[in-house]
Amino acid sequence: MTFREDGAAALEWAASYLERVGELPVLAQVEPGDIRSRLPAVPPVRGEPFADVLRDLDEILLPGVTHWQSPRFFAYFANSASEPGILAELLAATLNSVAFLWRTAPASTELELLTLDWTAQLLGLPTAWHGHIEDTASTSTIAALAAAREATGRSVVVCSEHAHSSVDKAAKLLGLQLRKVPADPEFRLRPDALDLTDAAAVVATVGTTSIASVDPVPAIADACAAHGTWLHVDAAYAGSAWVCPEFRWSQAGVERADSVVVNAHKWLFTPMDCSLVWTSRPEDFRRAFSLVPEYLRTSEAVDSLPDYGPALGRRFRSLKLWAILRCYGQEGLQVRIREAVRLAELFERWVRDEPGWEISAPRHFSLVCFRRDGSNEENQAIVDRVNRTGELFLSHTRLDDRYVLRLAIGNERTAEDDVRRAWDALRAAAAG
Amino acid sequence: MTFREDGAAALEWAASYLERVGELPVLAQVEPGDIRSRLPAVPPVRGEPFADVLRDLDEILLPGVTHWQSPRFFAYFANSASEPGILAELLAATLNSVAFLWRTAPASTELELLTLDWTAQLLGLPTAWHGHIEDTASTSTIAALAAAREATGRSVVVCSEHAHSSVDKAAKLLGLQLRKVPADPEFRLRPDALDLTDAAAVVATVGTTSIASVDPVPAIADACAAHGTWLHVDAAYAGSAWVCPEFRWSQAGVERADSVVVNAHKWLFTPMDCSLVWTSRPEDFRRAFSLVPEYLRTSEAVDSLPDYGPALGRRFRSLKLWAILRCYGQEGLQVRIREAVRLAELFERWVRDEPGWEISAPRHFSLVCFRRDGSNEENQAIVDRVNRTGELFLSHTRLDDRYVLRLAIGNERTAEDDVRRAWDALRAAAAG
Repeated sequence: MTFREDGAAALEWAASYLERVGELPVLAQVEPGDIRSRLPAVPPVRGEPFADVLRDLDEILLPGVTHWQSPRFFAYFANSASEPGILAELLAATLNSVAFLWRTAPASTELELLTLDWTAQLLGLPTAWHGHIEDTASTSTIAALAAAREATGRSVVVCSEHAHSSVDKAAKLLGLQLRKVPADPEFRLRPDALDLTDAAAVVATVGTTSIASVDPVPAIADACAAHGTWLHVDAAYAGSAWVCPEFRWSQAGVERADSVVVNAHKWLFTPMDCSLVWTSRPEDFRRAFSLVPEYLRTSEAVDSLPDYGPALGRRFRSLKLWAILRCYGQEGLQVRIREAVRLAELFERWVRDEPGWEISAPRHFSLVCFRRDGSNEENQAIVDRVNRTGELFLSHTRLDDRYVLRLAIGNERTAEDDVRRAWDALRAAAAG
Repeated sequence: MTFREDGAAALEWAASYLERVGELPVLAQVEPGDIRSRLPAVPPVRGEPFADVLRDLDEILLPGVTHWQSPRFFAYFANSASEPGILAELLAATLNSVAFLWRTAPASTELELLTLDWTAQLLGLPTAWHGHIEDTASTSTIAALAAAREATGRSVVVCSEHAHSSVDKAAKLLGLQLRKVPADPEFRLRPDALDLTDAAAVVATVGTTSIASVDPVPAIADACAAHGTWLHVDAAYAGSAWVCPEFRWSQAGVERADSVVVNAHKWLFTPMDCSLVWTSRPEDFRRAFSLVPEYLRTSEAVDSLPDYGPALGRRFRSLKLWAILRCYGQEGLQVRIREAVRLAELFERWVRDEPGWEISAPRHFSLVCFRRDGSNEENQAIVDRVNRTGELFLSHTRLDDRYVLRLAIGNERTAEDDVRRAWDALRAAAAG
């Protein structure tokens, strides 16, 4: 194998994929088992050329890819692997740094701390906080709740019924009891329903998964302060919007948090995976996670980033974040965030103006929750029908037992025409 | 930015890096803070060309990189990001699949299950097991111990004093009590010292971190069977050697395990991160981790891989493993594993034959533990001195309070001449 030739072919495949991804069916149009049945059940004895791998990626795997990079991917929270981020992943894999100690990867360790400081500045977060990267918000929340348990000695976690399922998962993993607090009619945690007497932590959400609602963080922070409870803010999706001052209303009170998570791989144009965690209490993270066995002992008195989360081995994730922050700059990030929100506003207006359709929850940021007047079954049928066309992919949630459609804008390639095509497809699907 | 041009430059940088990595100082010759001090403290307002990022990677970051890809990286467990693996990471970042449900990434989900089945076949593991990928062995062990806790309802974990520190970390995270069992003179868990009455799990290690010793898994499996205790086998490093039948002596009893972890990113030529977990009890993993909120509910009755570990979002890690298994084939993997072991045997012989040096622990696989006759301080000085030359990088451990040097062979680029140069440098350092 020659790396230059195979690499050129892989790069050409990538470039061509990004050019044509908008023409491919967004949701993979395959049945379970289809992809696997087309691949050999046994591994090869002899090595094969990389060109064969690339051919099979194109011919066999590609039909089984749901195209997160499509401009008409509107499901869950749409994201983007931007071009500088993709190329930085190539470079990170080439270096293959394993950053479990400063000395095993000084550049990775220092760039991680630096890019988290940069991002804190861009988002208007306190710059004295300690930032590091985990793979996903699930892990970031595990880390924060473990620190909260360590700091408080308590074992109850409180969140709204609209908090992400990763809070349930983290609590179960950590052996903590989870108490869910009701939400108000706009799907925000009701601070008057908080009882924090024995609570290790509250998880407040800025941009909930179903509807992007924003919990009242200032009131929650007051309650946490009164009871010595750790405040963890899950801003996995919406936190990226803070790069624009006009969305910082949703950041009120966050400066009083003990920890915050923002997923750069959600709306900061970073390829999977890159979940950013900041804390004002790094020593509690270290108490929860630091262990230095003899074979990892070194003389440098510096930060070791595995001291802040569950994993020991860590790859060079900050390289892609650094490449994106540099190639886009503050202005480039703002332009993209604003455009996504503008498109969501546009779609919201179309829905409002169309008889027979309704907006189901206040729109914040770039997520629109809506439905057709009619039964849950009819709405589900619309979703199934449009997703089967391959023209777009969107997902749903359930609010007060009503089936609700979600259009999440977040892919940087999404243009007004894509949103228009989605709306046309939805109305056609509703018409039968 | 044009993706093709910037991509060609990034690829050329990567190709050239891999050509010259053997000439760079293996351990980064910088002081803490050196890298960061050369980078701006504030992020850019305007976007910059990708070429500037690449230039700064080369000029500013590179001196702060400890070169895991160097053929004279002999510290910890040496690893390799092979060329097919690197290019597959470029492709995975391009696709940016997020595999939290089958439908969000059918190809990623099915290829992950397939490549784990392929790898089980290559390693001679039971092919009926369920396999999936986590980021690191730390997370794999967390997942296995959470499943063990779920399955047994008990809260004690047992391992040898030579088990990896990630077991301590996992137990602490999960709120489990860890009981360490003494090892025999060859650093293997002593099964006669096991008391499993209340034990949820035993972690047996095949290839311990300090010396690559192999716990007596058959006797441990007997004890686990007698007490209904979960057996988790940590073969993070040595499991890859099972691709060669002559190393399967170390696999005895593993077929009776409830879960096994092998890190493809350690000795299976896969870029960080790719930790493989197999289990004979997938239903217990699902009981520990499965949670399906409304917004993730779909009609397909298929495996969702977040049901087997802590994270929800998952990137397309199987693509690199698939590319490597195909491009190397069984034979290519065997040739590389055997060569690493041959080089370790060679080095072991040189040490044995040299007056004033000794082998400190039985050598298994590709790790040699040795020391110079003399004090701990003298040995530590040798390590510090050779690492400072940049000629090679090796690490140490402590056995029965003796400071011991570790030469770990695992990078696929390491040739006999590299091992010879390491030995020359060590003897020179010892001579003063």
